[in-house]
Amino acid sequence: MQLIIGDKRFSSWSMRAWLAVKATGKPCEEVPVRLRQPDTRTQILRWSPSGKLPCLLEHGLAVWDSLAIAEYLAEEFPQLWPQDAAARALARSVSAEMHSGFAALRNEMSMDAGASLPGVMPSDACAADIARIQMIWEDCRRDQGLGGPYLFGAWSIADMMFAPVCLRFETYGVALTPLAQAYCQSVLAHPHVQAWKKAAQLERQA
Amino acid sequence: MQLIIGDKRFSSWSMRAWLAVKATGKPCEEVPVRLRQPDTRTQILRWSPSGKLPCLLEHGLAVWDSLAIAEYLAEEFPQLWPQDAAARALARSVSAEMHSGFAALRNEMSMDAGASLPGVMPSDACAADIARIQMIWEDCRRDQGLGGPYLFGAWSIADMMFAPVCLRFETYGVALTPLAQAYCQSVLAHPHVQAWKKAAQLERQA
Repeated sequence: MQLIIGDKRFSSWSMRAWLAVKATGKPCEEVPVRLRQPDTRTQILRWSPSGKLPCLLEHGLAVWDSLAIAEYLAEEFPQLWPQDAAARALARSVSAEMHSGFAALRNEMSMDAGASLPGVMPSDACAADIARIQMIWEDCRRDQGLGGPYLFGAWSIADMMFAPVCLRFETYGVALTPLAQAYCQSVLAHPHVQAWKKAAQLERQA
Repeated sequence: MQLIIGDKRFSSWSMRAWLAVKATGKPCEEVPVRLRQPDTRTQILRWSPSGKLPCLLEHGLAVWDSLAIAEYLAEEFPQLWPQDAAARALARSVSAEMHSGFAALRNEMSMDAGASLPGVMPSDACAADIARIQMIWEDCRRDQGLGGPYLFGAWSIADMMFAPVCLRFETYGVALTPLAQAYCQSVLAHPHVQAWKKAAQLERQA
Protein backbone atom coordinates (compact mmCIF):
# COMPACT_ATOMS: atom_id res chain seq x y z
CA MET A 1 0.00 0.00 0.00
CA GLN A 2 1.22 3.50 -0.85
CA LEU A 3 -0.15 6.84 0.31
CA ILE A 4 0.66 9.90 -1.80
CA ILE A 5 0.62 13.00 0.38
CA GLY A 6 1.50 16.68 0.24
CA ASP A 7 3.77 18.60 2.64
CA LYS A 8 2.97 17.72 6.22
CA ARG A 9 3.04 21.41 7.17
CA PHE A 10 0.27 22.41 4.81
CA SER A 11 -1.73 19.43 3.61
CA SER A 12 -4.65 19.01 5.99
CA TRP A 13 -6.46 16.53 3.73
CA SER A 14 -3.31 14.40 3.45
CA MET A 15 -3.10 14.39 7.24
CA ARG A 16 -6.62 12.99 7.57
CA ALA A 17 -5.92 10.06 5.24
CA TRP A 18 -2.51 9.48 6.84
CA LEU A 19 -4.13 9.25 10.28
CA ALA A 20 -6.63 6.70 8.93
CA VAL A 21 -3.82 4.60 7.46
CA LYS A 22 -1.87 4.80 10.73
CA ALA A 23 -4.94 3.70 12.69
CA THR A 24 -5.13 0.49 10.64
CA GLY A 25 -1.55 -0.46 11.57
CA LYS A 26 -1.09 -1.66 7.99
CA PRO A 27 2.37 -1.23 6.43
CA CYS A 28 2.25 1.69 4.01
CA GLU A 29 4.89 3.52 1.99
CA GLU A 30 4.56 7.30 2.13
CA VAL A 31 5.17 9.06 -1.18
CA PRO A 32 5.59 12.80 -0.57
CA VAL A 33 4.84 15.38 -3.25
CA ARG A 34 6.16 18.89 -2.64
CA LEU A 35 3.30 21.39 -2.94
CA ARG A 36 3.61 24.91 -4.41
CA GLN A 37 6.33 23.88 -6.92
CA PRO A 38 6.21 24.47 -10.69
CA ASP A 39 5.73 20.75 -11.37
CA THR A 40 3.42 19.99 -8.43
CA ARG A 41 0.33 19.42 -10.57
CA THR A 42 2.21 17.13 -12.97
CA GLN A 43 3.61 15.15 -10.05
CA ILE A 44 0.19 14.73 -8.46
CA LEU A 45 -1.42 13.65 -11.74
CA ARG A 46 1.12 10.82 -11.98
CA TRP A 47 -0.80 9.21 -9.14
CA SER A 48 -4.14 10.86 -8.55
CA PRO A 49 -6.68 11.27 -11.38
CA SER A 50 -8.39 14.13 -9.52
CA GLY A 51 -5.18 16.19 -9.51
CA LYS A 52 -5.51 16.40 -5.73
CA LEU A 53 -3.97 14.69 -2.74
CA PRO A 54 -4.18 12.44 -0.81
CA CYS A 55 -4.35 9.33 -2.97
CA LEU A 56 -4.04 5.73 -1.78
CA LEU A 57 -2.68 2.99 -4.04
CA GLU A 58 -3.36 -0.68 -3.34
CA HIS A 59 -3.59 -3.72 -5.63
CA GLY A 60 -3.31 -1.45 -8.69
CA LEU A 61 -6.27 0.62 -7.50
CA ALA A 62 -6.14 4.40 -6.88
CA VAL A 63 -8.51 5.69 -4.20
CA TRP A 64 -8.57 9.44 -3.77
CA ASP A 65 -10.11 11.96 -1.40
CA SER A 66 -9.62 11.69 2.36
CA LEU A 67 -13.16 10.58 3.14
CA ALA A 68 -13.25 7.94 0.40
CA ILE A 69 -9.88 6.62 1.61
CA ALA A 70 -11.22 6.47 5.17
CA GLU A 71 -14.35 4.57 4.08
CA TYR A 72 -12.23 2.25 1.93
CA LEU A 73 -9.99 1.41 4.90
CA ALA A 74 -12.99 1.09 7.23
CA GLU A 75 -14.36 -1.76 5.12
CA GLU A 76 -11.30 -3.79 6.17
CA PHE A 77 -10.93 -2.14 9.60
CA PRO A 78 -14.45 -1.42 10.90
CA GLN A 79 -13.00 -0.15 14.18
CA LEU A 80 -12.17 3.11 12.34
CA TRP A 81 -15.82 4.05 12.85
CA PRO A 82 -17.80 3.74 16.11
CA GLN A 83 -19.23 0.25 16.43
CA ASP A 84 -22.73 1.37 17.46
CA ALA A 85 -24.86 2.08 14.36
CA ALA A 86 -26.41 5.31 15.68
CA ALA A 87 -23.03 6.62 16.82
CA ARG A 88 -21.57 5.68 13.45
CA ALA A 89 -24.33 7.65 11.66
CA LEU A 90 -23.51 10.70 13.79
CA ALA A 91 -19.78 10.22 13.22
CA ARG A 92 -20.42 10.15 9.48
CA SER A 93 -22.60 13.27 9.77
CA VAL A 94 -19.95 15.37 11.51
CA SER A 95 -17.21 13.95 9.25
CA ALA A 96 -19.17 14.84 6.12
CA GLU A 97 -19.98 18.29 7.54
CA MET A 98 -16.23 18.87 8.00
CA HIS A 99 -15.50 17.43 4.56
CA SER A 100 -17.76 19.82 2.66
CA GLY A 101 -17.88 22.83 4.95
CA PHE A 102 -16.05 25.41 7.05
CA ALA A 103 -14.62 27.22 4.03
CA ALA A 104 -14.04 30.47 5.94
CA LEU A 105 -11.98 28.72 8.61
CA ARG A 106 -10.00 26.86 5.98
CA ASN A 107 -9.29 30.07 4.05
CA GLU A 108 -8.44 32.34 6.96
CA MET A 109 -6.60 29.87 9.15
CA SER A 110 -4.80 27.62 6.72
CA MET A 111 -2.86 24.76 8.30
CA ASP A 112 0.80 25.28 9.13
CA ALA A 113 1.25 22.35 11.53
CA GLY A 114 3.24 23.25 14.62
CA ALA A 115 3.65 26.95 13.75
CA SER A 116 2.56 29.72 16.13
CA LEU A 117 0.71 32.55 14.38
CA PRO A 118 -1.49 34.21 16.99
CA GLY A 119 -3.40 37.42 16.44
CA VAL A 120 -5.45 36.61 13.34
CA MET A 121 -8.86 38.31 13.68
CA PRO A 122 -11.50 35.92 12.33
CA SER A 123 -14.23 37.26 10.04
CA ASP A 124 -17.86 36.73 11.09
CA ALA A 125 -18.04 33.70 8.82
CA CYS A 126 -14.88 32.22 10.34
CA ALA A 127 -16.14 32.92 13.87
CA ALA A 128 -19.38 31.12 12.99
CA ASP A 129 -17.35 28.14 11.73
CA ILE A 130 -15.38 28.06 15.00
CA ALA A 131 -18.60 28.25 17.03
CA ARG A 132 -20.21 25.41 15.06
CA ILE A 133 -17.12 23.20 15.42
CA GLN A 134 -17.11 23.74 19.17
CA MET A 135 -20.81 22.84 19.26
CA ILE A 136 -20.10 19.59 17.38
CA TRP A 137 -17.29 18.71 19.77
CA GLU A 138 -19.34 19.55 22.86
CA ASP A 139 -22.41 17.62 21.65
CA CYS A 140 -20.36 14.55 20.75
CA ARG A 141 -18.25 14.59 23.91
CA ARG A 142 -21.33 15.05 26.12
CA ASP A 143 -23.61 12.51 24.39
CA GLN A 144 -21.27 10.01 22.73
CA GLY A 145 -17.79 10.30 24.15
CA LEU A 146 -18.17 8.51 27.45
CA GLY A 147 -15.88 5.59 26.63
CA GLY A 148 -12.73 7.65 26.07
CA PRO A 149 -11.33 11.12 25.40
CA TYR A 150 -12.45 11.40 21.76
CA LEU A 151 -15.68 12.45 20.02
CA PHE A 152 -17.17 8.96 20.16
CA GLY A 153 -15.00 7.64 22.99
CA ALA A 154 -12.39 5.71 21.00
CA TRP A 155 -10.22 7.35 18.31
CA SER A 156 -12.25 7.31 15.07
CA ILE A 157 -12.42 8.83 11.59
CA ALA A 158 -14.48 11.68 13.08
CA ASP A 159 -11.47 12.71 15.19
CA MET A 160 -9.15 12.35 12.20
CA MET A 161 -11.38 14.71 10.20
CA PHE A 162 -11.06 17.35 12.94
CA ALA A 163 -7.38 16.80 13.82
CA PRO A 164 -6.13 19.47 11.36
CA VAL A 165 -8.65 21.88 12.91
CA CYS A 166 -7.07 21.24 16.32
CA LEU A 167 -3.67 22.09 14.83
CA ARG A 168 -5.13 25.30 13.38
CA PHE A 169 -6.68 26.30 16.70
CA GLU A 170 -3.29 25.74 18.32
CA THR A 171 -1.41 27.66 15.61
CA TYR A 172 -3.76 30.66 15.63
CA GLY A 173 -4.34 30.64 19.40
CA VAL A 174 -8.12 30.33 19.12
CA ALA A 175 -9.84 30.61 22.52
CA LEU A 176 -12.16 27.66 23.12
CA THR A 177 -14.74 26.66 25.70
CA PRO A 178 -13.31 24.39 28.43
CA LEU A 179 -14.95 21.24 27.02
CA ALA A 180 -13.77 22.00 23.47
CA GLN A 181 -10.31 22.88 24.72
CA ALA A 182 -10.02 19.61 26.64
CA TYR A 183 -10.99 17.65 23.52
CA CYS A 184 -8.56 19.65 21.38
CA GLN A 185 -5.74 18.86 23.81
CA SER A 186 -6.61 15.14 23.70
CA VAL A 187 -6.35 15.15 19.91
CA LEU A 188 -3.07 17.11 19.93
CA ALA A 189 -1.66 14.59 22.42
CA HIS A 190 -2.55 11.57 20.26
CA PRO A 191 0.71 9.85 19.23
CA HIS A 192 -0.16 9.88 15.52
CA VAL A 193 -0.93 13.60 15.62
CA GLN A 194 2.30 14.19 17.53
CA ALA A 195 4.23 12.23 14.89
CA TRP A 196 2.70 14.26 12.03
CA LYS A 197 3.42 17.53 13.81
CA LYS A 198 7.02 16.55 14.46
CA ALA A 199 7.53 15.70 10.78
CA ALA A 200 5.99 19.04 9.83
CA GLN A 201 8.43 20.83 12.11
CA LEU A 202 11.33 19.00 10.44
CA GLU A 203 10.01 20.14 7.05
CA ARG A 204 10.00 23.73 8.28
CA GLN A 205 13.64 23.48 9.38
CA ALA A 206 14.75 21.85 6.10
CA MET B 1 -38.48 7.85 8.35
CA GLN B 2 -38.59 11.57 7.54
CA LEU B 3 -36.40 13.53 5.14
CA ILE B 4 -36.16 17.28 5.68
CA ILE B 5 -35.39 18.99 2.37
CA GLY B 6 -35.17 22.45 0.85
CA ASP B 7 -36.96 23.73 -2.28
CA LYS B 8 -36.67 21.19 -5.08
CA ARG B 9 -35.77 23.97 -7.51
CA PHE B 10 -32.66 25.04 -5.65
CA SER B 11 -31.51 22.44 -3.16
CA SER B 12 -29.00 20.22 -4.94
CA TRP B 13 -27.84 18.55 -1.71
CA SER B 14 -31.42 17.75 -0.74
CA MET B 15 -31.88 16.18 -4.16
CA ARG B 16 -28.94 13.81 -3.62
CA ALA B 17 -30.30 12.51 -0.31
CA TRP B 18 -33.83 12.30 -1.72
CA LEU B 19 -32.57 10.16 -4.61
CA ALA B 20 -30.81 7.86 -2.14
CA VAL B 21 -34.00 7.48 -0.08
CA LYS B 22 -36.04 6.81 -3.25
CA ALA B 23 -33.55 4.14 -4.34
CA THR B 24 -34.13 2.23 -1.10
CA GLY B 25 -37.90 2.04 -1.75
CA LYS B 26 -38.43 2.69 1.95
CA PRO B 27 -41.50 4.73 2.94
CA CYS B 28 -40.39 8.24 3.87
CA GLU B 29 -42.27 11.41 4.73
CA GLU B 30 -40.88 14.50 3.00
CA VAL B 31 -40.75 17.60 5.19
CA PRO B 32 -40.13 20.65 2.99
CA VAL B 33 -38.50 23.80 4.35
CA ARG B 34 -38.80 26.93 2.20
CA LEU B 35 -35.34 28.38 1.57
CA ARG B 36 -34.54 32.10 1.36
CA GLN B 37 -37.25 33.09 3.88
CA PRO B 38 -36.72 35.21 7.02
CA ASP B 39 -37.29 32.17 9.26
CA THR B 40 -35.48 29.58 7.10
CA ARG B 41 -32.57 29.15 9.48
CA THR B 42 -34.85 28.75 12.51
CA GLN B 43 -36.96 26.20 10.64
CA ILE B 44 -33.90 24.16 9.61
CA LEU B 45 -32.46 24.21 13.14
CA ARG B 46 -35.69 22.60 14.41
CA TRP B 47 -34.48 19.44 12.67
CA SER B 48 -30.85 19.66 11.64
CA PRO B 49 -28.11 20.51 14.17
CA SER B 50 -25.79 21.68 11.38
CA GLY B 51 -28.26 24.35 10.27
CA LYS B 52 -28.14 22.80 6.81
CA LEU B 53 -30.31 20.47 4.77
CA PRO B 54 -30.89 17.64 4.00
CA CYS B 55 -31.46 15.87 7.29
CA LEU B 56 -32.88 12.37 7.75
CA LEU B 57 -34.79 11.38 10.89
CA GLU B 58 -35.24 7.74 11.88
CA HIS B 59 -35.74 6.06 15.27
CA GLY B 60 -35.14 9.40 17.02
CA LEU B 61 -31.80 9.83 15.26
CA ALA B 62 -30.91 12.83 13.07
CA VAL B 63 -28.44 12.10 10.24
CA TRP B 64 -27.35 15.12 8.23
CA ASP B 65 -25.31 15.82 5.12
CA SER B 66 -26.11 14.11 1.81
CA LEU B 67 -23.09 11.80 1.83
CA ALA B 68 -23.57 10.70 5.46
CA ILE B 69 -27.25 10.00 4.71
CA ALA B 70 -26.25 7.96 1.65
CA GLU B 71 -23.72 5.91 3.65
CA TYR B 72 -26.26 5.45 6.46
CA LEU B 73 -28.84 4.10 4.01
CA ALA B 74 -26.22 1.96 2.23
CA GLU B 75 -25.58 0.04 5.44
CA GLU B 76 -29.16 -1.28 5.18
CA PHE B 77 -29.27 -1.26 1.36
CA PRO B 78 -25.78 -2.19 0.10
CA GLN B 79 -27.04 -2.09 -3.50
CA LEU B 80 -26.78 1.72 -3.30
CA TRP B 81 -23.04 1.27 -3.92
CA PRO B 82 -21.44 -0.96 -6.60
CA GLN B 83 -21.10 -4.52 -5.28
CA ASP B 84 -17.49 -4.98 -6.46
CA ALA B 85 -15.05 -3.65 -3.82
CA ALA B 86 -12.74 -1.89 -6.30
CA ALA B 87 -15.68 -0.30 -8.12
CA ARG B 88 -17.11 0.77 -4.76
CA ALA B 89 -13.81 2.43 -3.83
CA LEU B 90 -13.86 4.37 -7.10
CA ALA B 91 -17.52 5.27 -6.65
CA ARG B 92 -16.68 6.63 -3.20
CA SER B 93 -13.72 8.56 -4.66
CA VAL B 94 -15.78 10.36 -7.31
CA SER B 95 -18.66 10.90 -4.85
CA ALA B 96 -16.32 12.45 -2.27
CA GLU B 97 -14.65 14.56 -4.98
CA MET B 98 -18.09 15.93 -5.90
CA HIS B 99 -18.98 16.39 -2.23
CA SER B 100 -16.02 18.62 -1.40
CA GLY B 101 -15.21 20.16 -4.76
CA PHE B 102 -16.36 22.00 -7.87
CA ALA B 103 -17.00 25.26 -6.04
CA ALA B 104 -16.76 27.39 -9.20
CA LEU B 105 -19.41 25.32 -10.99
CA ARG B 106 -21.65 25.44 -7.95
CA ASN B 107 -21.29 29.22 -7.64
CA GLU B 108 -21.64 30.15 -11.29
CA MET B 109 -24.28 27.61 -12.33
CA SER B 110 -26.48 27.24 -9.30
CA MET B 111 -29.22 24.65 -9.61
CA ASP B 112 -32.63 25.79 -10.83
CA ALA B 113 -34.07 22.40 -11.75
CA GLY B 114 -35.93 22.39 -15.04
CA ALA B 115 -35.20 26.05 -15.88
CA SER B 116 -33.53 27.09 -19.14
CA LEU B 117 -30.85 29.74 -18.68
CA PRO B 118 -28.43 29.39 -21.59
CA GLY B 119 -25.66 31.86 -22.37
CA VAL B 120 -23.73 31.90 -19.08
CA MET B 121 -20.02 32.24 -19.90
CA PRO B 122 -18.06 30.03 -17.46
CA SER B 123 -14.92 31.37 -15.80
CA ASP B 124 -11.68 29.44 -16.29
CA ALA B 125 -12.21 27.77 -12.92
CA CYS B 126 -15.75 26.74 -13.85
CA ALA B 127 -14.59 25.46 -17.26
CA ALA B 128 -11.94 23.38 -15.47
CA ASP B 129 -14.64 21.95 -13.19
CA ILE B 130 -16.77 21.03 -16.21
CA ALA B 131 -13.77 19.40 -17.92
CA ARG B 132 -12.92 17.37 -14.82
CA ILE B 133 -16.52 16.19 -14.39
CA GLN B 134 -16.63 15.05 -18.01
CA MET B 135 -13.35 13.18 -17.46
CA ILE B 136 -14.82 11.41 -14.41
CA TRP B 137 -17.92 10.44 -16.35
CA GLU B 138 -15.94 9.22 -19.36
CA ASP B 139 -13.47 7.22 -17.26
CA CYS B 140 -16.23 5.56 -15.25
CA ARG B 141 -18.46 4.84 -18.24
CA ARG B 142 -15.54 3.40 -20.22
CA ASP B 143 -13.96 1.33 -17.44
CA GLN B 144 -16.79 0.57 -15.01
CA GLY B 145 -20.13 1.22 -16.65
CA LEU B 146 -20.50 -1.87 -18.83
CA GLY B 147 -23.47 -3.35 -16.98
CA GLY B 148 -25.86 -0.46 -17.56
CA PRO B 149 -26.17 3.21 -18.55
CA TYR B 150 -24.78 4.69 -15.33
CA LEU B 151 -21.27 5.41 -14.01
CA PHE B 152 -20.86 1.95 -12.52
CA GLY B 153 -23.48 0.22 -14.63
CA ALA B 154 -26.39 0.16 -12.21
CA TRP B 155 -27.82 3.34 -10.61
CA SER B 156 -25.68 4.12 -7.56
CA ILE B 157 -24.85 6.87 -5.06
CA ALA B 158 -22.17 8.09 -7.50
CA ASP B 159 -24.89 8.92 -10.04
CA MET B 160 -27.02 10.56 -7.34
CA MET B 161 -24.08 12.80 -6.42
CA PHE B 162 -23.81 13.98 -10.04
CA ALA B 163 -27.54 14.18 -10.84
CA PRO B 164 -27.81 17.88 -9.85
CA VAL B 165 -24.82 18.55 -12.12
CA CYS B 166 -26.75 16.99 -15.00
CA LEU B 167 -29.67 19.34 -14.27
CA ARG B 168 -27.25 22.28 -14.24
CA PHE B 169 -25.70 21.27 -17.55
CA GLU B 170 -29.22 21.07 -19.02
CA THR B 171 -30.29 24.42 -17.54
CA TYR B 172 -27.19 26.31 -18.69
CA GLY B 173 -26.90 24.49 -22.04
CA VAL B 174 -23.36 23.28 -21.40
CA ALA B 175 -21.87 21.55 -24.46
CA LEU B 176 -20.51 18.11 -23.58
CA THR B 177 -18.51 15.39 -25.30
CA PRO B 178 -20.70 12.69 -26.87
CA LEU B 179 -19.93 10.14 -24.13
CA ALA B 180 -20.61 12.64 -21.34
CA GLN B 181 -23.75 13.86 -23.07
CA ALA B 182 -25.10 10.31 -23.40
CA TYR B 183 -24.51 9.71 -19.69
CA CYS B 184 -26.13 13.03 -18.78
CA GLN B 185 -29.21 12.11 -20.81
CA SER B 186 -29.44 8.73 -19.06
CA VAL B 187 -29.41 10.45 -15.67
CA LEU B 188 -31.99 13.05 -16.75
CA ALA B 189 -34.23 10.23 -18.00
CA HIS B 190 -34.08 8.31 -14.69
CA PRO B 191 -37.62 8.20 -13.25
CA HIS B 192 -36.54 9.59 -9.86
CA VAL B 193 -34.73 12.52 -11.50
CA GLN B 194 -37.79 13.13 -13.68
CA ALA B 195 -40.02 13.12 -10.60
CA TRP B 196 -37.78 15.64 -8.79
CA LYS B 197 -37.67 17.90 -11.85
CA LYS B 198 -41.45 17.81 -12.26
CA ALA B 199 -41.93 18.79 -8.61
CA ALA B 200 -39.41 21.63 -9.10
CA GLN B 201 -41.41 22.88 -12.08
CA LEU B 202 -44.59 22.86 -9.99
CA GLU B 203 -42.76 24.92 -7.33
CA ARG B 204 -41.80 27.46 -10.00
CA GLN B 205 -45.43 27.83 -11.11
CA ALA B 206 -46.73 28.17 -7.55
